[in-house]
Amino acid sequence: MQNRFWRIARRPEGIDFASALELVEAPLAPLVDDEIRIRNSHLSMDAGTRLWLTDREDGYQPPLPVGAPMSGLVLGEVVESRAEGFAPGDLVRAFGQWSDWSTVDAVMSGALVLDPTVSDRRSWFGPLGMNGWTALWGVEKTGAAKLGERVLVSAAAGATGILAVQIAKLLGCEAWGIAGGAAKCAYLTDELGIAGAVDYKGTDVGAQLDAAGGFDVYFDNVGGALLDQVLTRMNHYGRVAVCGLLADYTSGRRTAPAEFDQVLMRRLRIEGFFSPDFMHEGPALTERLRSCTRRAIW
Amino acid sequence: MQNRFWRIARRPEGIDFASALELVEAPLAPLVDDEIRIRNSHLSMDAGTRLWLTDREDGYQPPLPVGAPMSGLVLGEVVESRAEGFAPGDLVRAFGQWSDWSTVDAVMSGALVLDPTVSDRRSWFGPLGMNGWTALWGVEKTGAAKLGERVLVSAAAGATGILAVQIAKLLGCEAWGIAGGAAKCAYLTDELGIAGAVDYKGTDVGAQLDAAGGFDVYFDNVGGALLDQVLTRMNHYGRVAVCGLLADYTSGRRTAPAEFDQVLMRRLRIEGFFSPDFMHEGPALTERLRSCTRRAIW
Repeated sequence: MQNRFWRIARRPEGIDFASALELVEAPLAPLVDDEIRIRNSHLSMDAGTRLWLTDREDGYQPPLPVGAPMSGLVLGEVVESRAEGFAPGDLVRAFGQWSDWSTVDAVMSGALVLDPTVSDRRSWFGPLGMNGWTALWGVEKTGAAKLGERVLVSAAAGATGILAVQIAKLLGCEAWGIAGGAAKCAYLTDELGIAGAVDYKGTDVGAQLDAAGGFDVYFDNVGGALLDQVLTRMNHYGRVAVCGLLADYTSGRRTAPAEFDQVLMRRLRIEGFFSPDFMHEGPALTERLRSCTRRAIW
Repeated sequence: MQNRFWRIARRPEGIDFASALELVEAPLAPLVDDEIRIRNSHLSMDAGTRLWLTDREDGYQPPLPVGAPMSGLVLGEVVESRAEGFAPGDLVRAFGQWSDWSTVDAVMSGALVLDPTVSDRRSWFGPLGMNGWTALWGVEKTGAAKLGERVLVSAAAGATGILAVQIAKLLGCEAWGIAGGAAKCAYLTDELGIAGAVDYKGTDVGAQLDAAGGFDVYFDNVGGALLDQVLTRMNHYGRVAVCGLLADYTSGRRTAPAEFDQVLMRRLRIEGFFSPDFMHEGPALTERLRSCTRRAIW
């Protein structure tokens, strides 16, 4: 049987991804022991996706080689299995290929059998997947947000940020988001009902932050100049949970906080975190996130 | 009775302290309620001393006004008391004046009656004082150093650093120090017996650090370019306990770590700390530090 898949033809230049991938066909190889075959219904486009395409060697994970099938999290039904615990018909999530069928080692791909009763399957990528785990971990563990504290999230309208602000709210915090443009900000305040939003594309971001007041937790997806703006507005003993440095990926410049001495002046804690480090806690995090779904928008 | 004291004549320029202070005399005023009079036997010259002399408003504490008596920690005998719990003859440490006699409010000055049997009174400034508390807190709490980990201390031959490396050693860690010059480094390794020393005035600091290997805790008194050198050599999940930014005070430039993204890449935790924040734990810290004195050099 023929399988269509996206192959990495070359490293992307800037934001030209169209020429980086090419659609090719190849026959499916028979399964070997411990493998499963998944008919993909969904692919996940994550922040990591962009990193895996680059040749940057000091990132989280080694880049995918040119010529390899494009990879990422996939969702689908098991059609064939030579791995224990997986049977045809199971709904699974795994690190597979951007293709009609993914063929993966059940263990190496982190394949997980999912509860098929969750109404929107795509939740397994978002709130019940890596984004949800990351948001919960960053707000609760790394950020150590406590009831009644003020929590600020950058890229708050992004896949992880949108969950982080809601989790902060559920924890009894006053949640604020930073997003680009009036539409995203209105979504955060009017749809998600968080306390306030700062438009980083708007006029005088510093004045907007000043009007918002000091923050106890900053869930930062961005880094860059915005981080400096926030550091001078953190409350004493505040925590900065560093989830990502989007500003670096797009600007090509590395974040070097000019306001670093606030760490001492305000006794801040700045800490990086990364979902593969708490993968083993994933099932427990998922259970807790599911128990929230009735109370939150997701 | 006349009291001689050092008065702040003007803000110091660079390292010219001689012209910043002038010795003057004034009669001692009678005590009011809650005050004690101390005949100073020792004054403490701390890192904070320099900060109090500047007019920088965003530091830890408000600067001392020009024209005021120079202040700092003093040690001496109570000669007169109108405060409960203090009697003539008591050995005390307090935040007093650089003078023959200090006149202080017992509570506001943090006056503490000391055990006179400690053989070297000066220990109450160093290992049993703020430096000891800071070293213990920074290594154990902020740095969260654990048995068998590798702990690096900058300004390791300084008043706090010298205690931090010894505390790390007592905690069962492999202690390393950074100091300027062969003599200080030899003191650290040969006299204090720590695992190794890096000479920041020596050739190729990066290569010296590489030879030392990765670190789990960095007790940083310095900041600046040295911090960048260390960030790229921290072990994953390492902790940077920021005690001071000496490089900033002398260079006039503010630390802006170019290697900040290591926070994410290595999941580091960077946290500032400052002794007044744990003053209330001082007596307990002092007791624990005293129990160490038989095992350490101090």
